[in-house]
Amino acid sequence: MKHFSSYIPKYFSLVTGKAEGNTKLTAFDNALLSANVGDYNIVKVSSIIPPGCVFMSDYKIEPGSIVYCAYGFIICNLPGEIISSAVAVGVSNDYELESGLIMEYSSKCIKTVSEEKVKSMVVEGMTYRKKDIKDILFTSSEHEVKKIGAVFSGVLLWG
Amino acid sequence: MKHFSSYIPKYFSLVTGKAEGNTKLTAFDNALLSANVGDYNIVKVSSIIPPGCVFMSDYKIEPGSIVYCAYGFIICNLPGEIISSAVAVGVSNDYELESGLIMEYSSKCIKTVSEEKVKSMVVEGMTYRKKDIKDILFTSSEHEVKKIGAVFSGVLLWG
Amino acid sequence: MKHFSSYIPKYFSLVTGKAEGNTKLTAFDNALLSANVGDYNIVKVSSIIPPGCVFMSDYKIEPGSIVYCAYGFIICNLPGEIISSAVAVGVSNDYELESGLIMEYSSKCIKTVSEEKVKSMVVEGMTYRKKDIKDILFTSSEHEVKKIGAVFSGVLLWG
Repeated sequence: MKHFSSYIPKYFSLVTGKAEGNTKLTAFDNALLSANVGDYNIVKVSSIIPPGCVFMSDYKIEPGSIVYCAYGFIICNLPGEIISSAVAVGVSNDYELESGLIMEYSSKCIKTVSEEKVKSMVVEGMTYRKKDIKDILFTSSEHEVKKIGAVFSGVLLWG
Repeated sequence: MKHFSSYIPKYFSLVTGKAEGNTKLTAFDNALLSANVGDYNIVKVSSIIPPGCVFMSDYKIEPGSIVYCAYGFIICNLPGEIISSAVAVGVSNDYELESGLIMEYSSKCIKTVSEEKVKSMVVEGMTYRKKDIKDILFTSSEHEVKKIGAVFSGVLLWG
Repeated sequence: MKHFSSYIPKYFSLVTGKAEGNTKLTAFDNALLSANVGDYNIVKVSSIIPPGCVFMSDYKIEPGSIVYCAYGFIICNLPGEIISSAVAVGVSNDYELESGLIMEYSSKCIKTVSEEKVKSMVVEGMTYRKKDIKDILFTSSEHEVKKIGAVFSGVLLWG
């Protein structure tokens, strides 16, 4: 069978942000801007780091690009509520040859709770896949809602 | 850092439609057909007009293509209910160099309400981004549910 | 008008799986693994078989690839509950020239119910499109929830 020449991202980057807005969608949009991904056309994916895919702390992608991203978010219109989101990446010991795993989480809780949750999800997923974990990378945001608030955490897959 | 040669759509087109169906998914599918996008594999994106991306009132895309689309929709099974959806595009004064912004909205309301809502969301988003608005393009649909109804409004990003 | 040289998948394959997890997302992830799609970056599409797209019972796609998939799923945390998901593909009589149609369904029911449901949705959709059905392909999964369970059924579009 002929091998499928598919698109496999070369780099991954962690992003996170938080914001207020006058509506739920503008709060979400403002959170994307706060995470420095507000000028992309984000496509949601579930949720693998390809073998050999390299972590980059920074990225330069042209505005308007289609960009794949595994992400979690929450939008809330209850003033005073604490909301948070987190993503974590499980990097395999043999990351040149084996996939890594992305997990995302969001809830009405402080960010350390979201962080612990995603990290334990990564551990569960990697264990289920019988892969040793070399490292877990993560990022998160926390926000106290004023009017309508949103938090967003994601892993960009690009390049 | 090497620049990412990403996919950036060249054209955008506004689409909208409404329909009935025997189930929620077939009502949605029929609304896609009514909007003239029923023969595409639509991928949801959030929600940017790339710099220099050109508005086209018409489009010719081959059936079965993967097509990116920012959209809003609502499916409703309450006979007699009025539902509507709308999308609006904020075109920047400097649209050759600056991104535009897409907002979408849907609710149990008449379409002029959905239109006003998305337009105000575009204004909020463009103001937040400190961009002057040259023009706002929009489209919408309204439907009175008979059995199970759906409305759909979107911005195709293609070419 | 210049024709858009878009991406049109060449092959489609049916996939389905079920699993338990400690959280909703890990249950879903484990169901993807059970369906042999756990190592891909899955992008949700709605829901067309391109003209001439060929059914393949097997596929070989590199880990970490972006893969388009029309799918249905359900995640449930009620021990003892029966959950199921199904997808069906309506293949047109003139499938070299005409698109086929994908429908997906999931609910708290046994899988024969989900199968009948998606098949009737395919019939409705193809009838609405005035296309004769040559064949309906389908797959499904059923699961009795222990702690947190998930089922997933999809149509991969690839190649």
